[in-house]
Amino acid sequence: MKKGLKIATIGGGSSYTPELVEGFIKRYNELPVKELWLVDIEEGKEKLEIVGDLAKRMVEKAGIPIDIYLTLDREEALKEADFVTTQFRVGLLDARAKDERIPLKYGVIGQETNGPGGLFKALRTIPVILDICREMERLCPNAWLINFTNPAGMVTEAVLRYSNIEKVVGLCNVPIGMEMGIAKLLSVEHSRVRIDFAGLNHMVYGLDVYLDGISVKDKVIDLLTDPRNSSFVKNIQGLGWEPAFLKALNALPCPYHMYYYKTRDMLEKDLKNAETEGTRAEVVQKLEKELFELYKDPNLNVKPPQLEKRGGAYYSDAAVRLITSIYTDKRDIQPVNTRNNGAIASIPDDSAVEVSCVITKDGPKPMAMGDLPVAVRGLVQQIKSFEKVAIEAAVTGDYNTALLALIINPLVPSDTVAKQILDEMLEAHKQYLPQFFKKISV
Amino acid sequence: MKKGLKIATIGGGSSYTPELVEGFIKRYNELPVKELWLVDIEEGKEKLEIVGDLAKRMVEKAGIPIDIYLTLDREEALKEADFVTTQFRVGLLDARAKDERIPLKYGVIGQETNGPGGLFKALRTIPVILDICREMERLCPNAWLINFTNPAGMVTEAVLRYSNIEKVVGLCNVPIGMEMGIAKLLSVEHSRVRIDFAGLNHMVYGLDVYLDGISVKDKVIDLLTDPRNSSFVKNIQGLGWEPAFLKALNALPCPYHMYYYKTRDMLEKDLKNAETEGTRAEVVQKLEKELFELYKDPNLNVKPPQLEKRGGAYYSDAAVRLITSIYTDKRDIQPVNTRNNGAIASIPDDSAVEVSCVITKDGPKPMAMGDLPVAVRGLVQQIKSFEKVAIEAAVTGDYNTALLALIINPLVPSDTVAKQILDEMLEAHKQYLPQFFKKISV
Amino acid sequence: MKKGLKIATIGGGSSYTPELVEGFIKRYNELPVKELWLVDIEEGKEKLEIVGDLAKRMVEKAGIPIDIYLTLDREEALKEADFVTTQFRVGLLDARAKDERIPLKYGVIGQETNGPGGLFKALRTIPVILDICREMERLCPNAWLINFTNPAGMVTEAVLRYSNIEKVVGLCNVPIGMEMGIAKLLSVEHSRVRIDFAGLNHMVYGLDVYLDGISVKDKVIDLLTDPRNSSFVKNIQGLGWEPAFLKALNALPCPYHMYYYKTRDMLEKDLKNAETEGTRAEVVQKLEKELFELYKDPNLNVKPPQLEKRGGAYYSDAAVRLITSIYTDKRDIQPVNTRNNGAIASIPDDSAVEVSCVITKDGPKPMAMGDLPVAVRGLVQQIKSFEKVAIEAAVTGDYNTALLALIINPLVPSDTVAKQILDEMLEAHKQYLPQFFKKISV
Amino acid sequence: MKKGLKIATIGGGSSYTPELVEGFIKRYNELPVKELWLVDIEEGKEKLEIVGDLAKRMVEKAGIPIDIYLTLDREEALKEADFVTTQFRVGLLDARAKDERIPLKYGVIGQETNGPGGLFKALRTIPVILDICREMERLCPNAWLINFTNPAGMVTEAVLRYSNIEKVVGLCNVPIGMEMGIAKLLSVEHSRVRIDFAGLNHMVYGLDVYLDGISVKDKVIDLLTDPRNSSFVKNIQGLGWEPAFLKALNALPCPYHMYYYKTRDMLEKDLKNAETEGTRAEVVQKLEKELFELYKDPNLNVKPPQLEKRGGAYYSDAAVRLITSIYTDKRDIQPVNTRNNGAIASIPDDSAVEVSCVITKDGPKPMAMGDLPVAVRGLVQQIKSFEKVAIEAAVTGDYNTALLALIINPLVPSDTVAKQILDEMLEAHKQYLPQFFKKISV
Repeated sequence: MKKGLKIATIGGGSSYTPELVEGFIKRYNELPVKELWLVDIEEGKEKLEIVGDLAKRMVEKAGIPIDIYLTLDREEALKEADFVTTQFRVGLLDARAKDERIPLKYGVIGQETNGPGGLFKALRTIPVILDICREMERLCPNAWLINFTNPAGMVTEAVLRYSNIEKVVGLCNVPIGMEMGIAKLLSVEHSRVRIDFAGLNHMVYGLDVYLDGISVKDKVIDLLTDPRNSSFVKNIQGLGWEPAFLKALNALPCPYHMYYYKTRDMLEKDLKNAETEGTRAEVVQKLEKELFELYKDPNLNVKPPQLEKRGGAYYSDAAVRLITSIYTDKRDIQPVNTRNNGAIASIPDDSAVEVSCVITKDGPKPMAMGDLPVAVRGLVQQIKSFEKVAIEAAVTGDYNTALLALIINPLVPSDTVAKQILDEMLEAHKQYLPQFFKKISV
Repeated sequence: MKKGLKIATIGGGSSYTPELVEGFIKRYNELPVKELWLVDIEEGKEKLEIVGDLAKRMVEKAGIPIDIYLTLDREEALKEADFVTTQFRVGLLDARAKDERIPLKYGVIGQETNGPGGLFKALRTIPVILDICREMERLCPNAWLINFTNPAGMVTEAVLRYSNIEKVVGLCNVPIGMEMGIAKLLSVEHSRVRIDFAGLNHMVYGLDVYLDGISVKDKVIDLLTDPRNSSFVKNIQGLGWEPAFLKALNALPCPYHMYYYKTRDMLEKDLKNAETEGTRAEVVQKLEKELFELYKDPNLNVKPPQLEKRGGAYYSDAAVRLITSIYTDKRDIQPVNTRNNGAIASIPDDSAVEVSCVITKDGPKPMAMGDLPVAVRGLVQQIKSFEKVAIEAAVTGDYNTALLALIINPLVPSDTVAKQILDEMLEAHKQYLPQFFKKISV
Repeated sequence: MKKGLKIATIGGGSSYTPELVEGFIKRYNELPVKELWLVDIEEGKEKLEIVGDLAKRMVEKAGIPIDIYLTLDREEALKEADFVTTQFRVGLLDARAKDERIPLKYGVIGQETNGPGGLFKALRTIPVILDICREMERLCPNAWLINFTNPAGMVTEAVLRYSNIEKVVGLCNVPIGMEMGIAKLLSVEHSRVRIDFAGLNHMVYGLDVYLDGISVKDKVIDLLTDPRNSSFVKNIQGLGWEPAFLKALNALPCPYHMYYYKTRDMLEKDLKNAETEGTRAEVVQKLEKELFELYKDPNLNVKPPQLEKRGGAYYSDAAVRLITSIYTDKRDIQPVNTRNNGAIASIPDDSAVEVSCVITKDGPKPMAMGDLPVAVRGLVQQIKSFEKVAIEAAVTGDYNTALLALIINPLVPSDTVAKQILDEMLEAHKQYLPQFFKKISV
Repeated sequence: MKKGLKIATIGGGSSYTPELVEGFIKRYNELPVKELWLVDIEEGKEKLEIVGDLAKRMVEKAGIPIDIYLTLDREEALKEADFVTTQFRVGLLDARAKDERIPLKYGVIGQETNGPGGLFKALRTIPVILDICREMERLCPNAWLINFTNPAGMVTEAVLRYSNIEKVVGLCNVPIGMEMGIAKLLSVEHSRVRIDFAGLNHMVYGLDVYLDGISVKDKVIDLLTDPRNSSFVKNIQGLGWEPAFLKALNALPCPYHMYYYKTRDMLEKDLKNAETEGTRAEVVQKLEKELFELYKDPNLNVKPPQLEKRGGAYYSDAAVRLITSIYTDKRDIQPVNTRNNGAIASIPDDSAVEVSCVITKDGPKPMAMGDLPVAVRGLVQQIKSFEKVAIEAAVTGDYNTALLALIINPLVPSDTVAKQILDEMLEAHKQYLPQFFKKISV
């Protein structure tokens, strides 16, 4: 077996990179990374250097022989890579801030993955990821593409359906966060808890929960709806749920379900935040500025604890755990975004789903989940419809298709409002959406 | 073949009855009705007599030997009936007014079929229809149950899944209204236009439109989005659609889709109406009062033209046309609510769908429609999920299940609001919802 | 509506043509055929002239203004045709005789549609039909292709999946023959009987039987298994079935099912026939010779009754009835081979199935049949697997794929025997299978 | 976690028991068995004592504190058991000999699992297993039923569909044998090879083969078809396959596929064996006699190597490995018979399939395999149809249903022959088939 892996990280200048590096250091014994290529674009050069220097200090401190390379040349980074990870953000946080603020002007939640904001993130991101795929076909056709870039579900499906790269996995920290939260609620080690996950990215349900392999779903639902746990639950679930709802649902929603089952409350919260502390993108921008100030400190040679507030907690663990399981053919169970292949009934076989999988060297193998509970089947199908139409819009640059995606999104209250949002957002993101404008400019 | 049919009409005192009678008169040559039993409950006795007397005058005027019977004894009416039609309204229009007004207090559309109002209509109606089915099993096991009572889709599915009556069809005037509207738009006879309908009751799409058997869908969509037709379109479609939306959808929505694709506009309209002319139920109450005044006129011996404003236009034609096609094994194509049987992919075989069917003496045989277009698959699935959970709540009287139905309804903006509406509406409709209260009273 | 249709009949020199002409004459009032182009290949020129002259005498006698054209130029015939019918036989009856005789040498039934013979018929026919489709795309893109050429199911699926012609229907006289046989058994007019057909070509089941729209399946099965009807049943069903089998099956098999449910008996019969009167192809060759002698008679100006023995009884009626229903948008129910579109569960949507359809101007619309009875699901799936692999072999000319098709055929008793048959038959049909040999010759 | 497990083994007097005991001894560290109850019926008392005494000597020799109990009282054995294993044989090997011999008289392969013999084994076994399930519901409702009794697939489905026991797994040594054979062919350790299994019991395919997690399917097929390996392959596969067949199939058949893809050869082989050495049952009877002679030796205190010839090699490993993985929530991948739950498309969710599963304390979780390759879909469906009809016959005792099962079996050449076999076998097994005879005796 080839020793000494090459990892290419697109968007290497991200503030998340120290987590990733920490992960590679921790698992070095199992996962012998030889080269880590952090690649970014011209606009990200300064950040890349700051975070790259920290990464170098981290591996030096750890005494691990991983070589860190910083580059703006994506092709050089991809060449013969074993794993490609993507954590880039087309248009940076400024674009995300627009994804959030523009819909709010029309009284609509932005939501950067499955909402109107997510549509625009998809429109900006999918053409870039498909470019990367074409380069991978040429430069590292056997590499695995591990995508953290949101909207992770749509990106994964776009790669599966519109590129020749089959070795792609979409990764999200929501499911692992749910498992860890439930473990805390049960006061047990995370490793003793396992959830059967099924659904879509940011629309995933825990169909069952096991403690030491025995179902404890009823107990967990009781705990989640016990008023004595309310502050704890709000912490992991956001606003908390109506107890009778959770009992009737008989499954665990994820925090993002708040957008769909508590739309009015979330809208109010988003509007209030936008007026006070700023949207999530704006808060993160401030956090990032502070983080990069920290990262500059030449004495810092470990991941600073402040990074956890950034929101991507466990990403490091999730990503490196996944890469390690693929590399070592570990056959452990992890929830990832992958080709459905019949695991979830009513979703096409070739669609991406987020589902508990056995991770092998041949990739994730989803566990058959059968039919989703009747009460959740509709919403999951609706978001999948949205995703599929949004992907088509991203690939074709067709105005009407983009409008259709917005209108069928459950957060959008009317076709007329959809058109207003679409027109304003297309204009606002114009520079990142050449597929929608090139025809006009001709 | 047995000559001289017995028809039993539950809710015979309805203001619609003259339409039905007119239909039987018109088609007497094909459909030899011998006895028409109009049955109602004690509270409806006066109306039953008024409308029954008019019916008698109508057949007499027409010179057709149909015997009209008025009765409060349902069993007598059902005994050996050939067709049972249902057009009753549990709690009368007062209940519908509450279905509309209470949600509006919480900023939520009531919508009497697929919205919160529809849930309550289902909770009140389904136990009664299942009672009727049990009587039919005993008194007229070979009769066809032709249900006009809303929510027609849920009622049909409840009968299919919770009774032993298999000969049931749910009927709605929306599809026939769409066909007639399109015919008008094309300036041709209705008989030359045929639409491939697929979806659910009040959630049905025209997947294709044919003129003389040739698809004219593109032309129809052009006409529907042509500003020169806007006033006409608003008349058949309500508020009118964004042209780009219809083009991208590439299918014809039904007027009820306004609630889902123009939620905000419809809510505003409903709120304004509630403040001014009253909710639809309240408007209809006034109309009905006027109609019954007309009906009392002993000189009236035909269906008065004012009835058309009542909203159920074409019901007469649709219902009697359906009964005639069944009776004569006509094998013509009609859109009705029936067992899916695979006609629409992703919907369970044993669910009710609204779909173009060939009508035979053995009942409606749905035409295979394959997969719905991806853009509509989600919303249809979501309403089907709502319907299934709502039916379960109606049958079990389980509070949590009813709450779940409300929360997963796309018109309801949060679990907390759902609970408030549920609690107020359960109380308001208490007398018609014994299944929810009997346990408490014990 | 355009008056005066152009029909192009590929294989116009067939002995069946007088039936077709008779059909056009009979239905001239509904189906105003202006031009009938009989097209054949050089080797069929003599027959074409004989049968063409008879056709001319027939229309003249009938006093109907249909112009008959005889040509060897397929393109001329196809140009602007409204309907293209195909009844050609690549390699003529000599090839069919080999399809039957060669497998028998190895103790295997030939069976010219779903057996080893059918595989070779498909290998010879499919490339030709796809050529015709390419010409149609160019010369008559709006024409309907009505295919009688066997194996009709595979040919239809090949057109659906490997050409751009979507307007294709495969036609077989088996279902109509079953309906007429059952009508006779019930001593009623054919028009009063309707069967719900579902399955594949020559593998179709009657799932239910209606008399005047009322199910009489149980009665029909009783009649079919009543010893007093045995001679009659053998006539329509071949050898007759075990009564307990039919009762448990609870559906009507077609005569071709004898090959699968009575394999041993059919093999014995085929072997015996081959030794005595000759295989079916050889018998038909003699019949055809006699028919053409008759056709030559310049005084003959109607379809001679002897044609019925030829085996294709009702084809005329079935074909012209189908064309008439399409042309007039008749919306009557006919069993044809068409795109499944979900009508039969477990069969892919884009596969051809033989199923009861409503015939519209937009083509056949299959009626949703749901799941096949569990007992027949397996055999149908197995023949569909065979068909799909056989079609792939026909299109690719791949030896291994052709071998696989033979091995998975239920009539073939081993992979080794399959290889022997394949090798001998490839050689025997070499001139008609360029796709298998061109690579070697290069 | 409860320490000290109770295992109940129905059919404990089987010659296989020493393997099972060896398995428990080997894995004692992980699987702390406290009590092993061997239960048998009166007729098996002598064997039970012989094998039970050997079992006692084995644990004593191993120095492991497992208590061995011998009993004829099934209820006592089941009471509070943690795992119930079944390895009984209704009618003993005499019945199997009839299953094999009677069909051969009619020129038909008996085949004790998916052939006519398998039908009769199912008819005898399923009522007994359902009795055991009813006792388990009462005496050990939380126990796992690990069934080795053939036909393991049908038995598993019968339990899933006709009992309240959900914790059931069917086990077969064929898949593990295939993996071990392939490992040998590749000259590597078994643990490095993994096969994606999908299909039915004794009708399972290897869809892909991995060495260290990397697909080596093409290489394995090359090796299997390399003439230099032919003697080795015959050893693991029986007669060997046509190379072109395996290449086109592009999947690994199991040895039992010989019956379907080499029917004629297998029939000849079976006929010849029946004339010379006896049928397999008769050979095994002799082997068993010898084994029991060995077992009687009071000095024997380990599993004797001669047992491997018995045919059930690896059963011990497979069974105890499975129990251990369930008990320890090991989450490793094993091929077992379990509820499909969507893992294999076109097979109903509630049917038993044989498929690679992750084994958890909550039972086997099948990995989603999507659609089977088109070439195998038909045969798998056909055997599943046979299984379902056979199970229905076993439960209802209906003659016609049993006949239908036989006729749709691919090994049976005609309905008439099926009836002859059925009648003779029903009579031969009369004493074990009360469900077919009780009605007559009344």
